[in-house]
Amino acid sequence: MSMVCLSDFEAYAKKYLPKIAWDYFAAGADDCTTRDENILAYKRIRFRPHMLRDVSVMDIRTKILGSEISFPVGIAPTGFHQLAWPDGEKSTARAARAMNTCYIASTYSTCTLEEISTAAPGGLRWFQLYIHRNRAASQQLVQRAEALGFQGLVLTADLPYTGKRRDDVRNGFRLPPHMKVKNLERAFEVCKMSFLDPSVTWNDIYWLQSLTRLPIIIKGILTREDAELAVKHGVQGIIVSNHGGRQLDEGPATIDALVEVVEAVRGRVEVYVDGGIRKGSDVLKALALGAKCVFIGRPALWGLAYKGEEGLQDVLKILQDEFRLSMALAGCASVSEIGQHLVQFSRL
Amino acid sequence: MSMVCLSDFEAYAKKYLPKIAWDYFAAGADDCTTRDENILAYKRIRFRPHMLRDVSVMDIRTKILGSEISFPVGIAPTGFHQLAWPDGEKSTARAARAMNTCYIASTYSTCTLEEISTAAPGGLRWFQLYIHRNRAASQQLVQRAEALGFQGLVLTADLPYTGKRRDDVRNGFRLPPHMKVKNLERAFEVCKMSFLDPSVTWNDIYWLQSLTRLPIIIKGILTREDAELAVKHGVQGIIVSNHGGRQLDEGPATIDALVEVVEAVRGRVEVYVDGGIRKGSDVLKALALGAKCVFIGRPALWGLAYKGEEGLQDVLKILQDEFRLSMALAGCASVSEIGQHLVQFSRL
Amino acid sequence: MSMVCLSDFEAYAKKYLPKIAWDYFAAGADDCTTRDENILAYKRIRFRPHMLRDVSVMDIRTKILGSEISFPVGIAPTGFHQLAWPDGEKSTARAARAMNTCYIASTYSTCTLEEISTAAPGGLRWFQLYIHRNRAASQQLVQRAEALGFQGLVLTADLPYTGKRRDDVRNGFRLPPHMKVKNLERAFEVCKMSFLDPSVTWNDIYWLQSLTRLPIIIKGILTREDAELAVKHGVQGIIVSNHGGRQLDEGPATIDALVEVVEAVRGRVEVYVDGGIRKGSDVLKALALGAKCVFIGRPALWGLAYKGEEGLQDVLKILQDEFRLSMALAGCASVSEIGQHLVQFSRL
Amino acid sequence: MSMVCLSDFEAYAKKYLPKIAWDYFAAGADDCTTRDENILAYKRIRFRPHMLRDVSVMDIRTKILGSEISFPVGIAPTGFHQLAWPDGEKSTARAARAMNTCYIASTYSTCTLEEISTAAPGGLRWFQLYIHRNRAASQQLVQRAEALGFQGLVLTADLPYTGKRRDDVRNGFRLPPHMKVKNLERAFEVCKMSFLDPSVTWNDIYWLQSLTRLPIIIKGILTREDAELAVKHGVQGIIVSNHGGRQLDEGPATIDALVEVVEAVRGRVEVYVDGGIRKGSDVLKALALGAKCVFIGRPALWGLAYKGEEGLQDVLKILQDEFRLSMALAGCASVSEIGQHLVQFSRL
Repeated sequence: MSMVCLSDFEAYAKKYLPKIAWDYFAAGADDCTTRDENILAYKRIRFRPHMLRDVSVMDIRTKILGSEISFPVGIAPTGFHQLAWPDGEKSTARAARAMNTCYIASTYSTCTLEEISTAAPGGLRWFQLYIHRNRAASQQLVQRAEALGFQGLVLTADLPYTGKRRDDVRNGFRLPPHMKVKNLERAFEVCKMSFLDPSVTWNDIYWLQSLTRLPIIIKGILTREDAELAVKHGVQGIIVSNHGGRQLDEGPATIDALVEVVEAVRGRVEVYVDGGIRKGSDVLKALALGAKCVFIGRPALWGLAYKGEEGLQDVLKILQDEFRLSMALAGCASVSEIGQHLVQFSRL
Repeated sequence: MSMVCLSDFEAYAKKYLPKIAWDYFAAGADDCTTRDENILAYKRIRFRPHMLRDVSVMDIRTKILGSEISFPVGIAPTGFHQLAWPDGEKSTARAARAMNTCYIASTYSTCTLEEISTAAPGGLRWFQLYIHRNRAASQQLVQRAEALGFQGLVLTADLPYTGKRRDDVRNGFRLPPHMKVKNLERAFEVCKMSFLDPSVTWNDIYWLQSLTRLPIIIKGILTREDAELAVKHGVQGIIVSNHGGRQLDEGPATIDALVEVVEAVRGRVEVYVDGGIRKGSDVLKALALGAKCVFIGRPALWGLAYKGEEGLQDVLKILQDEFRLSMALAGCASVSEIGQHLVQFSRL
Repeated sequence: MSMVCLSDFEAYAKKYLPKIAWDYFAAGADDCTTRDENILAYKRIRFRPHMLRDVSVMDIRTKILGSEISFPVGIAPTGFHQLAWPDGEKSTARAARAMNTCYIASTYSTCTLEEISTAAPGGLRWFQLYIHRNRAASQQLVQRAEALGFQGLVLTADLPYTGKRRDDVRNGFRLPPHMKVKNLERAFEVCKMSFLDPSVTWNDIYWLQSLTRLPIIIKGILTREDAELAVKHGVQGIIVSNHGGRQLDEGPATIDALVEVVEAVRGRVEVYVDGGIRKGSDVLKALALGAKCVFIGRPALWGLAYKGEEGLQDVLKILQDEFRLSMALAGCASVSEIGQHLVQFSRL
Repeated sequence: MSMVCLSDFEAYAKKYLPKIAWDYFAAGADDCTTRDENILAYKRIRFRPHMLRDVSVMDIRTKILGSEISFPVGIAPTGFHQLAWPDGEKSTARAARAMNTCYIASTYSTCTLEEISTAAPGGLRWFQLYIHRNRAASQQLVQRAEALGFQGLVLTADLPYTGKRRDDVRNGFRLPPHMKVKNLERAFEVCKMSFLDPSVTWNDIYWLQSLTRLPIIIKGILTREDAELAVKHGVQGIIVSNHGGRQLDEGPATIDALVEVVEAVRGRVEVYVDGGIRKGSDVLKALALGAKCVFIGRPALWGLAYKGEEGLQDVLKILQDEFRLSMALAGCASVSEIGQHLVQFSRL
């Protein structure tokens, strides 16, 4: 099997992962409309490529919150990497460091933050947080992450309750007994998730700011109103996200929502996007529409499922090559030349 | 078979109902375009969800014409429930009462109004009326319903003649001999339906008002012009409906028509909608666009076909859970917070 | 086999006609885009039905060029009816008369004008003309038609050359030896059609007017510019037509073109439309958009293929019943109540 | 097998060419979206045909850069014709001359320019150039072409690097050992293509102008900005092209891009288009939107694959007949009568 593009990894993962794990990773809420729209919406955007620019020397590096990464693609927070590969998040951390990019480790990791840190010392990492009903538990997690050298705190805003993912309900999905959500003290019941606090509001941003000096990035924003609120509450970054279509079905595709969020933010904080990235040219489109960087979720899991750390590196290398090539073919030699003039929305 | 969403009940009913009964319930007029559009039109509406609202305490109750119901989903009038379940409308009445919602009993019930009343005393019920050529027969029905404690009179306006439902014609559909349209004195010939009066006009609303003190709800309105006429003739409510796509094919989807009706009515009477509701998020969309409550037709029949009263309760519980979840994920803790800002029409 | 709607007749014809005949009747030019668009375009039009009108007495009659017909559906000119039924155009003429509607006999009939006349004396008929290179031959045909009591002359404007219908080329389509285009003196070679005159221009309308007192209807107009020219040259009627999609592929659907033609004509002459009519509600849409009457082509041939005169009557009766029902369900008791307020173009 | 339309040749080529050759010719970049859009975009354009024009004498000739061709369809530059037919580009040159049209020979020919010239002396030919890292090699090619009587120099602007064509990667595509890119001195490695110079800019147009008196046509322009630059740098012609969808995927369809390029150019240079031409009516659409001539790529290869020189002539004859017929049916007797009034963009 030759791995030429990301969908080759998807096919591999679908074939070789246990059905219950594949279903969990693939799941979207309800009819999976938003999950699929995330991808389709990219296809409605057309490039306006420019010719005869000197693209002999390509520079695809960028910076996020001041840290340089090798190209504008990071690893989005997703749970339970041991379902994809025995070493779980340790492999993810190593691959991200090897490729010199950012890895957002999830609260729902099957390795501890300490294991992740030790596996790939010096890598650029952010920590993704769900706020507990027991605030002390959250506080302890944030402070552990900061102490371990994580450089950003990503607050997920779109999960007061877990979305309805039909296949997970049918499968009675839960972690196999030998895996644990190790960052949480006691055994963790996926299907209940009763520890999530649905009373979290914008004021809790202030509480988080009182706990840590880490920059706070809010994940799950889809409208200009919420983008405005995020800026007003002093976050450093926004990840436009619909949780891979796993929460409220029939919300907007993230690339569509990006446009209005970028417009509202007017450069005051960095804006990122996840969901639906399947090709290097998707990255180019997101950047042209104002994203500073994109994050990939499921494709990273497919890479892990293929060959662990090495498989995820393969995925990132393919995206990197495709991104560089599409930049060149569109007439851009460096990330700073990418702009809205490169794209238009198709009539169809 | 695990029942996770409404289409599971649909699949069950399609598999286990006699073909002639399934076809009758499923039928749409002509090419079934409007029947299918009712569903597709919901998919073209996108949510604009808001994050970080306190949704720890959810209140999904509402009131219709002053009566509280547990959530904004009632049972639309459909005929011949004994085709779905032996106890017919008695089961429907019991399930609606158990779930504390409103059941609109059809003129074409296979149980009498008295049987329905006795089966579930105290339940909130409205009676749906077709006006007879023999007006005395209609008068008698209205007055029986009022005496039995029905709390609303629903006049169906879109059936001067029965729509052309090809499968029913091919099947030669008629009720099995052991079932009767018991509310009508003499044996009832479905395929003739000669008792329907196609000369009914808006003035007959005045005649109905002279017969009863019940509030009158008109069902089958699809345009602003007719909505204006309905208000002018003193109805208390409007159900935006195309009879499940069973009458004039290629009219508007009800959720699209709702927008213009709500605009025309400007809050003077309550507006409801039926047709195409398949998920809790569809209910949220309808409310966001101005409906006070929605009514489900076919899904109620699938529930009956699955397990009678219990099956219909299952359907309602699923809708209730999905509606509550989608409200929370969109950032609304109570029905009063739902508004047009929650939705936008997709370009596609 | 029960014949419930027009597509039942289509399925019958496809199954029982010789392939070469079916292919000839079904053929569209090139990719058949326009042939299929004729049908799809109707599906993009939505009704705005009105309720509670008195529709107890329905009047579906109309008049075309002063002659009353039982409902606004006539028989479009199509060739070679003997390919569908042994009695050919004689059966067509009888069915049209029995249903009290108009039959436009084609130059390419397999019966003579005299045979058609004799088969159904007193029927309302128009004669469709292609202009010959040999103008004397055309003159003789026009004058024969007038003498035989035909009441209109339909000039086909869209066939300077025959469109490229791939299946006919592959099949090497030609009439079987025992059939003749009897109205033309000498044996007729379908695939050559060299007798057609591609030099015909608008001035030839004046020449036709000099030959006959019959009203002239021009068939094949698709734009406002040509509609204006038609009025200026003194025709009495316009049939908006793309020859069933058999001539220039990827022109407009006729129902779409109707709108601009009606607008340009501003009531100065009658406007008709053919192409894509498959249901009674299609007729209602065409009338709502300004057509005085529609004509059916392929459905008439399917009726003939089913049972000759009787089959064509069945087709017309179904259309008549469907048209009456859709009028009633839209709230119109007579043809004069049909107007543009009944329809809107769907966004999709 | 009867060859009635271009897709018959496509089916033949797909069936009889070695898979690796078929895949190479058929390949599009990434998801092949743009390759397929080139075709689909034509289908969204509708004709506005005009009737009753005298089309008895048809003149379909045109001129490109002063040279008359028999109709406005030339042969686009494509590589490796020996993969399709043993005589390779010699057959192509002969067929183009026989049909009296223009053939743009590719740098990547499997015959030398001298062989091509000798095979069809006197034919109208342009030479397509990729600029080498070794500029002397390019200079030598340009001057050979000029000396051999080529009458135009086509600079391909959209290939600083080769697009990612997944099937070619999977197949490990390279030329069979007995074929050579003969115009380049040393053996040529397709998959490396390291000789391409990605530092080429608009200034290199001036360098080319210093080498030759041939008119320069730039190929690969898709935006008004680049069209303006092309005119400013003194080219004589622009070919609107996306390299058959083989370079940057999800750029515009060429027929859509043509509109904006023609608008920007305002008649100052000739504009041509390639990509997606499959029928004579596509040619008519391109001309109506302002192209002076179109060029066909893959269809020419299918013709070669079918029967070499003769097969390509068949393809050209079919396009010629279809173009003439569609002109006549649209009401144009000569190319000069074709204009934008003939087309409109469909809403769908």
